Amino acid sequence: SHGSRSVFLSSGNSCQIQFADQKQEFNKRPTKISRRSLSRSISQSSTDSYGSAASYTDSSDDETSPRDKQQKNSKGNADFCIKNIKQADFGRREIEIAEQEMPALMALRKRAQGEKPLAGAKIVGCTHITAQTAVLMETLSALGAQCRWAACNIYSTQNEVAAALAEGGFSVFAWKGESEDDFWWCIDRCVNVEGWQPNMILDDGGDLTHWIYKKYPSMFKKIKGIVEESVTGVHRLYQLSKAGKLCVPAMNVNDSVTKQKFDNLYCCRESILDGLKRTTDVMFGGKQVVVCGYGEVGKGCCAALKAMGSIVYVTEIDPICALQACMDGFRLVKLNEVIRQVDIVITCTGNKNVVVREYMDRMKNGCIVCNMGHSNTEIDVASLRTPELTWERVRSQVDHVIWPDGKRIVLLAEGRLLNLSCSTVPTFVLSITATTQALALIELYNAPEARYKQDVYLLPKKMDEYVASLHLPTFDAHLTELSDEQAKYLGLNKNGPFKPNYYRSAAA
Amino acid sequence: SHGSRSVFLSSGNSCQIQFADQKQEFNKRPTKISRRSLSRSISQSSTDSYGSAASYTDSSDDETSPRDKQQKNSKGNADFCIKNIKQADFGRREIEIAEQEMPALMALRKRAQGEKPLAGAKIVGCTHITAQTAVLMETLSALGAQCRWAACNIYSTQNEVAAALAEGGFSVFAWKGESEDDFWWCIDRCVNVEGWQPNMILDDGGDLTHWIYKKYPSMFKKIKGIVEESVTGVHRLYQLSKAGKLCVPAMNVNDSVTKQKFDNLYCCRESILDGLKRTTDVMFGGKQVVVCGYGEVGKGCCAALKAMGSIVYVTEIDPICALQACMDGFRLVKLNEVIRQVDIVITCTGNKNVVVREYMDRMKNGCIVCNMGHSNTEIDVASLRTPELTWERVRSQVDHVIWPDGKRIVLLAEGRLLNLSCSTVPTFVLSITATTQALALIELYNAPEARYKQDVYLLPKKMDEYVASLHLPTFDAHLTELSDEQAKYLGLNKNGPFKPNYYRSAAA
Amino acid sequence: SHGSRSVFLSSGNSCQIQFADQKQEFNKRPTKISRRSLSRSISQSSTDSYGSAASYTDSSDDETSPRDKQQKNSKGNADFCIKNIKQADFGRREIEIAEQEMPALMALRKRAQGEKPLAGAKIVGCTHITAQTAVLMETLSALGAQCRWAACNIYSTQNEVAAALAEGGFSVFAWKGESEDDFWWCIDRCVNVEGWQPNMILDDGGDLTHWIYKKYPSMFKKIKGIVEESVTGVHRLYQLSKAGKLCVPAMNVNDSVTKQKFDNLYCCRESILDGLKRTTDVMFGGKQVVVCGYGEVGKGCCAALKAMGSIVYVTEIDPICALQACMDGFRLVKLNEVIRQVDIVITCTGNKNVVVREYMDRMKNGCIVCNMGHSNTEIDVASLRTPELTWERVRSQVDHVIWPDGKRIVLLAEGRLLNLSCSTVPTFVLSITATTQALALIELYNAPEARYKQDVYLLPKKMDEYVASLHLPTFDAHLTELSDEQAKYLGLNKNGPFKPNYYRSAAA
Amino acid sequence: SHGSRSVFLSSGNSCQIQFADQKQEFNKRPTKISRRSLSRSISQSSTDSYGSAASYTDSSDDETSPRDKQQKNSKGNADFCIKNIKQADFGRREIEIAEQEMPALMALRKRAQGEKPLAGAKIVGCTHITAQTAVLMETLSALGAQCRWAACNIYSTQNEVAAALAEGGFSVFAWKGESEDDFWWCIDRCVNVEGWQPNMILDDGGDLTHWIYKKYPSMFKKIKGIVEESVTGVHRLYQLSKAGKLCVPAMNVNDSVTKQKFDNLYCCRESILDGLKRTTDVMFGGKQVVVCGYGEVGKGCCAALKAMGSIVYVTEIDPICALQACMDGFRLVKLNEVIRQVDIVITCTGNKNVVVREYMDRMKNGCIVCNMGHSNTEIDVASLRTPELTWERVRSQVDHVIWPDGKRIVLLAEGRLLNLSCSTVPTFVLSITATTQALALIELYNAPEARYKQDVYLLPKKMDEYVASLHLPTFDAHLTELSDEQAKYLGLNKNGPFKPNYYRSAAA
Repeated sequence: SHGSRSVFLSSGNSCQIQFADQKQEFNKRPTKISRRSLSRSISQSSTDSYGSAASYTDSSDDETSPRDKQQKNSKGNADFCIKNIKQADFGRREIEIAEQEMPALMALRKRAQGEKPLAGAKIVGCTHITAQTAVLMETLSALGAQCRWAACNIYSTQNEVAAALAEGGFSVFAWKGESEDDFWWCIDRCVNVEGWQPNMILDDGGDLTHWIYKKYPSMFKKIKGIVEESVTGVHRLYQLSKAGKLCVPAMNVNDSVTKQKFDNLYCCRESILDGLKRTTDVMFGGKQVVVCGYGEVGKGCCAALKAMGSIVYVTEIDPICALQACMDGFRLVKLNEVIRQVDIVITCTGNKNVVVREYMDRMKNGCIVCNMGHSNTEIDVASLRTPELTWERVRSQVDHVIWPDGKRIVLLAEGRLLNLSCSTVPTFVLSITATTQALALIELYNAPEARYKQDVYLLPKKMDEYVASLHLPTFDAHLTELSDEQAKYLGLNKNGPFKPNYYRSAAA
Repeated sequence: SHGSRSVFLSSGNSCQIQFADQKQEFNKRPTKISRRSLSRSISQSSTDSYGSAASYTDSSDDETSPRDKQQKNSKGNADFCIKNIKQADFGRREIEIAEQEMPALMALRKRAQGEKPLAGAKIVGCTHITAQTAVLMETLSALGAQCRWAACNIYSTQNEVAAALAEGGFSVFAWKGESEDDFWWCIDRCVNVEGWQPNMILDDGGDLTHWIYKKYPSMFKKIKGIVEESVTGVHRLYQLSKAGKLCVPAMNVNDSVTKQKFDNLYCCRESILDGLKRTTDVMFGGKQVVVCGYGEVGKGCCAALKAMGSIVYVTEIDPICALQACMDGFRLVKLNEVIRQVDIVITCTGNKNVVVREYMDRMKNGCIVCNMGHSNTEIDVASLRTPELTWERVRSQVDHVIWPDGKRIVLLAEGRLLNLSCSTVPTFVLSITATTQALALIELYNAPEARYKQDVYLLPKKMDEYVASLHLPTFDAHLTELSDEQAKYLGLNKNGPFKPNYYRSAAA
Repeated sequence: SHGSRSVFLSSGNSCQIQFADQKQEFNKRPTKISRRSLSRSISQSSTDSYGSAASYTDSSDDETSPRDKQQKNSKGNADFCIKNIKQADFGRREIEIAEQEMPALMALRKRAQGEKPLAGAKIVGCTHITAQTAVLMETLSALGAQCRWAACNIYSTQNEVAAALAEGGFSVFAWKGESEDDFWWCIDRCVNVEGWQPNMILDDGGDLTHWIYKKYPSMFKKIKGIVEESVTGVHRLYQLSKAGKLCVPAMNVNDSVTKQKFDNLYCCRESILDGLKRTTDVMFGGKQVVVCGYGEVGKGCCAALKAMGSIVYVTEIDPICALQACMDGFRLVKLNEVIRQVDIVITCTGNKNVVVREYMDRMKNGCIVCNMGHSNTEIDVASLRTPELTWERVRSQVDHVIWPDGKRIVLLAEGRLLNLSCSTVPTFVLSITATTQALALIELYNAPEARYKQDVYLLPKKMDEYVASLHLPTFDAHLTELSDEQAKYLGLNKNGPFKPNYYRSAAA
Repeated sequence: SHGSRSVFLSSGNSCQIQFADQKQEFNKRPTKISRRSLSRSISQSSTDSYGSAASYTDSSDDETSPRDKQQKNSKGNADFCIKNIKQADFGRREIEIAEQEMPALMALRKRAQGEKPLAGAKIVGCTHITAQTAVLMETLSALGAQCRWAACNIYSTQNEVAAALAEGGFSVFAWKGESEDDFWWCIDRCVNVEGWQPNMILDDGGDLTHWIYKKYPSMFKKIKGIVEESVTGVHRLYQLSKAGKLCVPAMNVNDSVTKQKFDNLYCCRESILDGLKRTTDVMFGGKQVVVCGYGEVGKGCCAALKAMGSIVYVTEIDPICALQACMDGFRLVKLNEVIRQVDIVITCTGNKNVVVREYMDRMKNGCIVCNMGHSNTEIDVASLRTPELTWERVRSQVDHVIWPDGKRIVLLAEGRLLNLSCSTVPTFVLSITATTQALALIELYNAPEARYKQDVYLLPKKMDEYVASLHLPTFDAHLTELSDEQAKYLGLNKNGPFKPNYYRSAAA
């Protein structure tokens, strides 16, 4: 729910929030979900399918709900709820493999371990539960924190990783294929504990924060800060802040420069190829492709496809990005100029109804349509669910939509994010995200009280640079240091930050 | 067995061939296979695992051998042996999808259908049995031919496609997971038929040709020619020819210019990325990679990885290719100069023992090792099967080999071809191959007797150009025609061939 | 004098400014210049050599100073001072050629001509006087303005263009090869006119502004605003503003997004190749190059050289840019790691003493050293002016510096900006700059008084986007328009601006 | 005269050759030249303008013909005829600079010096006389040869280099700006010497060979072989051979693999940018370009322009090259589809009348037209020399051709080769050529008599590889050596050749 839900209810003392647009929100949900009786708002991202992580996970036939069976780890601890504790060994190996590609967190363990900067921290987290998250959690623990964790998505949990975490003593409440009721139950189990109260929140999507606002508003008295990962969650926080209802400082780690560049330009450069190949085996050479939107995501897609020998057209609304597309060697067109001739259509706009039925009616037979943007609104998929069109599921995440005359278009992931659904996110990108989260937690937890008010903050530039620097050894990359004389000449501190305050990642 | 097996036995009248090096051959086989008691030589490629095609195939629990159950198609025909005729509908859809990406064959059907250039042809074929092959077979049929078909690989058959072909009236003998005995039984069922004798052979690997030479040499009296697809099979044919034992004309379609460029440069440019991503999810950006060999395959790999932001080193033995690597922007090194620092090692040499144990001992933790060359000899995998090293299968086609100190390298496809095992071959590439095969069959079948002797021929340049031209409409590509004046100036026929005889694809 | 001179003297009533650091300033000047007795401060850029523009200019033997001869144009007007009015026809043709590549200004003439948005404007300008500037001046005139103009650089004037302008009725005071005294005399002639007082300033380098501050401070009473083009001039303005001494609104057009991207990334991508080729004819393929600094300029240089087959290393101080270099496929090193092996060294840092003598001592024979950064301080050229080294001028802008052992390095443009000295700036880039200047003048001249205070402003985002949009027709590029629904969804005005306020070009 | 002149007259005993098509030849000459009374055939290339080399040369005012003044070098030797012996020092420096970029020849001096493989060789040469040729000549001398030399082009001689050679004792007869009579006089002075008779010929264009055939056919009795550099000269030799009139073995070094790749793909990749930039200062980013022909030259041009952000269209007649263009990401079109929209037209076909008047009539205003192919016939320049069109020379090598409606196209080098006329050939490319020439001379001079008959030969593959290997150290490139086991496996000699006989460079 891209920017739509600012609605938090609180009966507590400090913050008064109301459900303002719940009704509107419900109308926006996909049919399948809205048929269920939802007693609570759930972030849309929490029900997105999440392809790749799931692929390593067992498809055990045991249909008993984890909530209905009691499990203990080898030390007798039972304060968790997961699919199957017996998968712990397999999960541990996955975690070890992930550790090898997350050197920054491992370095953080080493550098900061002596001082335990998170000693006393009681972190409640709600994120995807994957091997990479496990490396983060075990790092937080090594730095002194206690952690309780739930999943931010009902499909994305790697059961064997959850098992390994439970075996390692973490209180994890998550499994792949939770119901919506399970989803909130797990979150509640994380925070509603006798004799333990969180003092830090790590959230991805805002559902955990929402739950505490709604059910346990008084908890915020002890909470030192919120670290939020997602666009949606950050949007909620800004709206809370604007409304004067944000009770604690919050760190927006979504917009850190390093994360942005990696999540968008560099990651999409690879995942557009991966996502298309895994779903369609299409040969890129010689294909005509139109990419809608030339922001960082579009730039990444265009660069990759051009490099593979595709002929790429670009559409844009912003003349500055448009001029960049021209200079980068792409014909700037309106969609209707090329829609009949292209083999692949990719949306990267963040906008809605970019590819509408009228365009799809004019596509040629076999045209592939997919979305790399920030939401599932870019392709008007609903317009394809009409009686005269036949849908044929040809592979996982691949539908043929067939016109009466036999023409078929190939729709990927039903218009949802291709790179989340049909490709994997490299561990290296997740490492940057996880490191940023860890540093944000450390910063908020240790900052003198005056530093952060009840507002939403970006990660300090210097810490952003620190995240980047922790990832350089992976590439055996050697940074040059300024001499005193040079630092003075440039008016910079030798240790950074090296960029002015107005520097932003989003500049395209 | 890259160039090693020239061994055909014939008791027939026209050709005397002996098992010359069978013993040597057996020693070369991988352990697993040579443990089995092999009563006959089988091409190594026939037992290669064949990943991608298999992925769409059912994993039915029915363990009855197809040889033990009688099946009929809907018209009561039972002259086939496949897994399950009930899968025909599903297979038909796969064929229809493939048809959309094989426009050249479809055009061939249209253009040549009137004249039925293969009327009277009785073709026995032995190739991978996939949707793309089905499009070829149905094209041959549309051109007038009768076809009987077996699989050239015990793993690669798409059962549902075989079912669709059987349902369509083709005599197909193939299923996924044949035993070696099954393999030869199927081939025999194709040729050993009462009242039907083949007059054309389409082979991929030389096993079918070998079987006829061995068992039914007299059949060659009626056979007008052999079309052979593979390096191995072509090598066998050249050796037969050299030995004066080739009884009929043979067409080497492996070395057609169009096929070479596509199979090597363009296909590898895409499949190296696809193969690495599907197996390891590695992020390419910033990775240090060494590519051994800078022929067409190496050039494709290097170009793709460079475009994705990898830092690529090249090794070469040939100074001309080496100089090209330099001019293309790659550091030319010896493997030992960079082996400690690289993240990925890719072999593309066609040579043996390029990556030996000594190098693998010095690789860094997590180094990925894979082979894109022409054989499975490039990486000395045998040297890794020693007691002190632990093998851990982490995913299909992915092994971690772990040293005593904990270092692990990531070995893909056990050193076999990455792009066959771990990625898919785009239909477009297969379309070029299939079209070339069809044209070669037409040429050999219709050529006046004097044109071809008992020798191995390359596809005439003009037909090679014709294959290319049939694929241009896919790209909406418009060829320019020479004016009479220009043709005269250049000394060319307006319709080609446009290249001199000495033109070869292999030139790097 | 990158950021060093904030020194304006004013005896006027409104603004009290003092020479604060004149002494320091003088010490920073290159030896050659500081040896001259300078009675006034002159911007360093005003004496930079300026290669390309000069190359089309006559090298007439007439050594009479233009100040000493009276000339009239064909209408009898003599209010100008240029080299030779007879060259007007040749200059007119150059202007006409430039017009063809400056469609944005031509469009501006058409669109805005009806309303004459500069009616009443009296603009005094001090810029390079080239064909492109002439197109700007004639556009300003067409929009209603009166113009008087001097050169901002003593070498860069295209005499024939100045002649054409004079013939066309413009009061131009400029010629190629002015002395420093000439330089200020020309500026004075522009402003010190009976019965005419400027109400707008267009400056490039700040010298004109400085002169008015110093000599005619009361003029500022009537001046509505300053438009400043250069880094140096903008820096001066910010310092004035900081000191509370800026008397009128000023528009910093140097930092407009469009200009930045073009001046840096896109322009340098081409000019690095051009500059190196014209001076050294070096073949790029296979060359090892180190680029110091991975900002926009460095990114442009690296991309171009990589594309031409060079092997490129990068040095950086900022971990974020460093990580980008890694992801873009460049080895990140310290200069000393590669200094012995590289063939070309390029500085793009904006820093000082990046390439010092110690490094140059270790370069290999024939190494090319040049500067693409923002100042001439990056290479420590002074350190090469020692007795044991021999300088040999081998071509214009190319020196061999020879070590006692015979090793020579190839120093380009004596360490000054390679792209200004040794390549040309494409008209298209100048078109963007000129259009931005024109729009800034219109904005400042027409803005309601309350809109701009006595401060330095960036061009409003919307006008930046307008400049970009005016250049799209050159590429036959078609912008997509938001629907009402989409604009609402995104929270944007349909006509832009499309970027948030914090959007900046500098983001790397 | 691309392939037109097979005409050699011989009155000698061994070879009877006649002027077959002289008349036709004369009609093909450019007007300016054919106006002169030509008493002899001269290769067209000998009168091509030759831009870059000339740029370093003095434009001395001394108009005395070198033939009219007697000069001596410092040792009193007068057996030469050049512009001005006093320029020897300046020329020597140019030679020394060239030596630094011709490491292969320098290595050859070292390696072969001991054995003097050219001891006794008397070489007469006719090539461009540049610093690079000087390095070749001094290498030949160091290897034991005596040399006499003339220029193969009337414009290309670097006078100061000729002076340095004369000062060094070489008998050089050449200056910049020879008349046609001078041209043949110089050649004659080389061969018509008392007491000295050449036994080897090194030719570039075939004029020297022609002269000897015509004037001194008996000389061939002592001549061991001809080494010919140019397409034209090679063509003449093949025709002689075909006609049975070739008296001695000849080595075609034009078609060596290494030279071809460098002269075409790699050199054009750089020179297309350089040539366009130096003449027009055009910005490449966003420009629409059509490249006619996708052989090696076209591939180089396309790759470079695509890399610089141009949008490139390709035309082709050959479906195989066409398919490659598609796979490389270029739209394949007919010229008339894009002629109205493109900004730049580049011919690379080797064909004639590719860009005819009809197309030029439809080009848009400002369109740049140039030729990178093998002859000056590709653009129908003659069709532009009509009364209604106005020609305006705007710079050296740049003409505006202006239509009655004011539209102008920008024609470069009057349709002659852009890279010869408007850019420089990198020394590195010339180094490959010169090394190939030296090795060919050594081979022919030392080969046992039986090895070469009176025919035209390609450089043996192994020597081609040797040339390449001598250039690898420039790139600090390290070649891998085959182990004995690997060589055996591949069926190769460890020292090469590594490519089969049918391997050719031209395959693209």
